[in-house]
Amino acid sequence: MESQTEISKIGEFGLIDRITDGITHRNSSTVAGVGDDGAVLHYPDTEVLVSTDLLVEGVHFDLTYVPLKHLGYKAAVVNFSDIYAMNGTPRQITVALGISSRFTVEHIEELYAGIRLACEIYGVDLVGGDTTASRSGLVISVTCIGNAAKDKIVYRSGAKDTDLICVSGDLGSAYMGLQLLEREKVASGGDKDFIPKFDGKEYLIERQLKPEARRDIISELAQAGIVPTSMMDISDGLSSELLHICKASDVGCRIYEDRIPIDYQTAVMAEEINMNLVTAALNGGEDYELVFTVPLHCHEQIEKMNGVKVIGHITKPELGCALITRDGVELELRAQGFNHMPDKTE
Amino acid sequence: MESQTEISKIGEFGLIDRITDGITHRNSSTVAGVGDDGAVLHYPDTEVLVSTDLLVEGVHFDLTYVPLKHLGYKAAVVNFSDIYAMNGTPRQITVALGISSRFTVEHIEELYAGIRLACEIYGVDLVGGDTTASRSGLVISVTCIGNAAKDKIVYRSGAKDTDLICVSGDLGSAYMGLQLLEREKVASGGDKDFIPKFDGKEYLIERQLKPEARRDIISELAQAGIVPTSMMDISDGLSSELLHICKASDVGCRIYEDRIPIDYQTAVMAEEINMNLVTAALNGGEDYELVFTVPLHCHEQIEKMNGVKVIGHITKPELGCALITRDGVELELRAQGFNHMPDKTE
Repeated sequence: MESQTEISKIGEFGLIDRITDGITHRNSSTVAGVGDDGAVLHYPDTEVLVSTDLLVEGVHFDLTYVPLKHLGYKAAVVNFSDIYAMNGTPRQITVALGISSRFTVEHIEELYAGIRLACEIYGVDLVGGDTTASRSGLVISVTCIGNAAKDKIVYRSGAKDTDLICVSGDLGSAYMGLQLLEREKVASGGDKDFIPKFDGKEYLIERQLKPEARRDIISELAQAGIVPTSMMDISDGLSSELLHICKASDVGCRIYEDRIPIDYQTAVMAEEINMNLVTAALNGGEDYELVFTVPLHCHEQIEKMNGVKVIGHITKPELGCALITRDGVELELRAQGFNHMPDKTE
Repeated sequence: MESQTEISKIGEFGLIDRITDGITHRNSSTVAGVGDDGAVLHYPDTEVLVSTDLLVEGVHFDLTYVPLKHLGYKAAVVNFSDIYAMNGTPRQITVALGISSRFTVEHIEELYAGIRLACEIYGVDLVGGDTTASRSGLVISVTCIGNAAKDKIVYRSGAKDTDLICVSGDLGSAYMGLQLLEREKVASGGDKDFIPKFDGKEYLIERQLKPEARRDIISELAQAGIVPTSMMDISDGLSSELLHICKASDVGCRIYEDRIPIDYQTAVMAEEINMNLVTAALNGGEDYELVFTVPLHCHEQIEKMNGVKVIGHITKPELGCALITRDGVELELRAQGFNHMPDKTE
């Protein structure tokens, strides 16, 4: 193990110097970044998009199996995902950290290495933040700022009767990755030399620990000249997001079980833990795929796109929201959810 | 006590509905607020300013004596203060909350009542956020977005030799308010019927529990046609902020003990707890006053301004940063600080 430096040795300002060392800006919209009371941005020709997320240790992540660098990467990427879900481009992030005393300078550098790697890959500038103490574990709040032309912004509320419902990638794999990590954590019994069994399930682990935001889909849609009528990223599960879209758009929907994209490893894992596969795909969280709707006439173009699948269609509101099973049964869609809200176990 | 509703009863989305009910927008820069993956803002003619803060229970606030409504108000106002410190106007905030299970729906509504009151008074729109569970107490992350014309933005880095150093309001009172609240908390011994002794020290309590951001000073400066050469808000103590300005501007400074604005109640409290008054004024945190520098020729105008005092001047860098005491002794300025970073007491 490398030598570790207590944060109290270098203080808050010393820590900030370390984690912001060598930061450069990629976007012309970034006028001034870290080092003042606020960042200064410049968006004369487009709308500005803002999204924020809070990640709390013990609720959103377990550092027993989540490496800090991966955590930093994920914390940044899930915020980029929100901006893509508005059909925008993420440009800047601010990062506020609450740090408890068991974390060293090197730990925080690891976390920032992940944040900065995500910024590099997605072309985003780290422009500000806050670092403070926390009484209990790590708290990460990321705010992402992005932009889009006014007529290209996609809200939740624009879905229309007969629109096609499309989903990128596959669903349920991040959730199954979490189940796998939890299973091996239990199996390890806390033994640090324990070697977890991930053979043949690497994809699930990757989906949970190192999700990517679907910039490629946004770019494909733009190239095809398609502006979706509604869009969200799938963080709480497809059911929950679709219900949001239908509520905001005042429409109903039909999706088809046999159209839900599911990876082979997800299916294997579901069988191993004796879980209903479709439930996992509909309600497992943290996929960070996109669900969006397009007018019916886009059908041919959408069919040609890589990594996008049509899973159903929008209906009139009075028809409600339902899943059609393989044997033709209509089940009402419910957000069983992936709930990060307080239960009674503080 | 009013009846209390467990958050789990109404769920995350139910809670969001409650706390965002009836939200309206005051600023033309707000295109779309809560209810989508991100907020949509419009800033065609000015620069965009962004600032973020994280407040953690047990580190930044103690709910034994801080009412939730006051906490919400303060969490919002301290972020507005950062935008004013850039010579800008706050326009939008996002609020991310980590909530542990001991908080009820009514508690969170109280907190939001404070946030919304601050927004109303300062003309700011609440445009987004995140609510999630926390394993231990309340976590509040606020990001504030504001704007300013490019040539009006004030950085830390513009102070020049011979500039006057100015401070708004008075210093050390918020810190003394904290000492007073802590003293009475200890005296109460946890007895809920205990009546704390705040007589004659109401101002200190107000400064700690309900700070205001100095919008009035920003407005006075604008009316006088003065753009400060550098500015910060005083959150960590005057010494710390002045050292930041001097470092960023590559200059030194001299401030004069007998010019430091101190309220009578602050002086009384310092004597009661046997603390050096100037130390409290220089290093006590959370004043949320403004420290700024202006060219020497602004002297007369500044002298006429309400609530602003010239406390010293900027020097060449080789002279360092010093306080001149009443008896003419030069003491090096140090940031003893009001440190919210981890110590070894997790």
